[in-house]
Amino acid sequence: MTNKPAVKAIGVRSVKFGRNVTIVKPSNIYGCRIGDDSFVGPFVEIQKGVVIGKACRIQSHSFICELVRIGDRVAVAHGVMFINDPYRTGGPAKGDRTLWEETVIGDDVSIGSNATILPVRVCAGTVIGAGAVVTRDILEPGIYAGNPARLLRRLRRKPGR
Amino acid sequence: MTNKPAVKAIGVRSVKFGRNVTIVKPSNIYGCRIGDDSFVGPFVEIQKGVVIGKACRIQSHSFICELVRIGDRVAVAHGVMFINDPYRTGGPAKGDRTLWEETVIGDDVSIGSNATILPVRVCAGTVIGAGAVVTRDILEPGIYAGNPARLLRRLRRKPGR
Amino acid sequence: MTNKPAVKAIGVRSVKFGRNVTIVKPSNIYGCRIGDDSFVGPFVEIQKGVVIGKACRIQSHSFICELVRIGDRVAVAHGVMFINDPYRTGGPAKGDRTLWEETVIGDDVSIGSNATILPVRVCAGTVIGAGAVVTRDILEPGIYAGNPARLLRRLRRKPGR
Repeated sequence: MTNKPAVKAIGVRSVKFGRNVTIVKPSNIYGCRIGDDSFVGPFVEIQKGVVIGKACRIQSHSFICELVRIGDRVAVAHGVMFINDPYRTGGPAKGDRTLWEETVIGDDVSIGSNATILPVRVCAGTVIGAGAVVTRDILEPGIYAGNPARLLRRLRRKPGR
Repeated sequence: MTNKPAVKAIGVRSVKFGRNVTIVKPSNIYGCRIGDDSFVGPFVEIQKGVVIGKACRIQSHSFICELVRIGDRVAVAHGVMFINDPYRTGGPAKGDRTLWEETVIGDDVSIGSNATILPVRVCAGTVIGAGAVVTRDILEPGIYAGNPARLLRRLRRKPGR
Repeated sequence: MTNKPAVKAIGVRSVKFGRNVTIVKPSNIYGCRIGDDSFVGPFVEIQKGVVIGKACRIQSHSFICELVRIGDRVAVAHGVMFINDPYRTGGPAKGDRTLWEETVIGDDVSIGSNATILPVRVCAGTVIGAGAVVTRDILEPGIYAGNPARLLRRLRRKPGR
């Protein structure tokens, strides 16, 4: 009375790699771009359409979903989860991609272990503490931590101010 | 002077699958039931005795332990950890299963990424935010978030009220 | 125009095992010591130089980094992330190991699922709740929870007091 499931093996597939990229197995990485000199640790999933810049470190156990763009020299620590479905209607989008939203992470951002990133913009130079849950755009460079994440300390003015 | 460890390879073993189930490797799934049209992402462990309903999505990096029952159309996002040992005595049960407790997740529940679910009952239609730590039963459908999780907004009255 | 990445397969390598250790695949475990009767679940990474005592349980999806020492009879639940770079300069150490700091976990400590452990000392007998973010040394045995973790309840005086 039991059925056979469809079992998918993905691994690394259809990725545009820059030069000198390192990947540690096992990881499922598909349909994305990863820039020069970047590193991806084990037990990571990176979904299609994701763009990761140069000299980034995506550490073990992290998940980077569709609609996420990451700048250069970004550190994504261990167990970081990105989200593209903010449950805007009070529940999951159930395949209606018009309800998904994008995330943009600026250059030189650091994201601590076990952080959770809702669909937001995070400006360059920001530091997100370990375990933080980022629910809103971060427009002022600083150190943010907590659930939900709040500004702990400004780091410096944005360029141009 | 070093010893050889016992190394266990599990994969998918002794699972009762409904029709049209999809699983992404690598995952360790054993001794459980998974209903029709459900999906299980990569880097997932589902332990023996677990029951998962129809049309569920169990996303990557999640862990579903013994004594968890999940209804139909439930979304378990990425990095969600279920718990069956609530440390009732002030520490782990150390194999004394009489100290373990069960978790029951109702139909149409959505659990956000990196959420942690202690042994509780969660009523149908509930939404649990990303990064929430659920330490108590949820009997009123609503949106719950934070550490510990608290009611942010009621969604609707329970049927029958 | 796409390049070939360096793909590393690690598995279990150069580990000093005590007697009667069990490991569940897939896991990346290298250059560390694991004491008698300890267990390591799947989807775990344990880095070089880590020392784990006797009769420990390191559960699935956990990450134990360099500079972590763990005593005997320690329970590390699922999705627990250890950290050795506290971003002391306001960002990642970028390979400058003089900025890394060590973590020491005493005997009989229990760490709940999805907890995050910054570089700290945790005294013997402590219980860290699920989802806690431990940012400071814990010198008094008790139950600690929250983000950041705070003392919920003392458990008993330290031996010798």
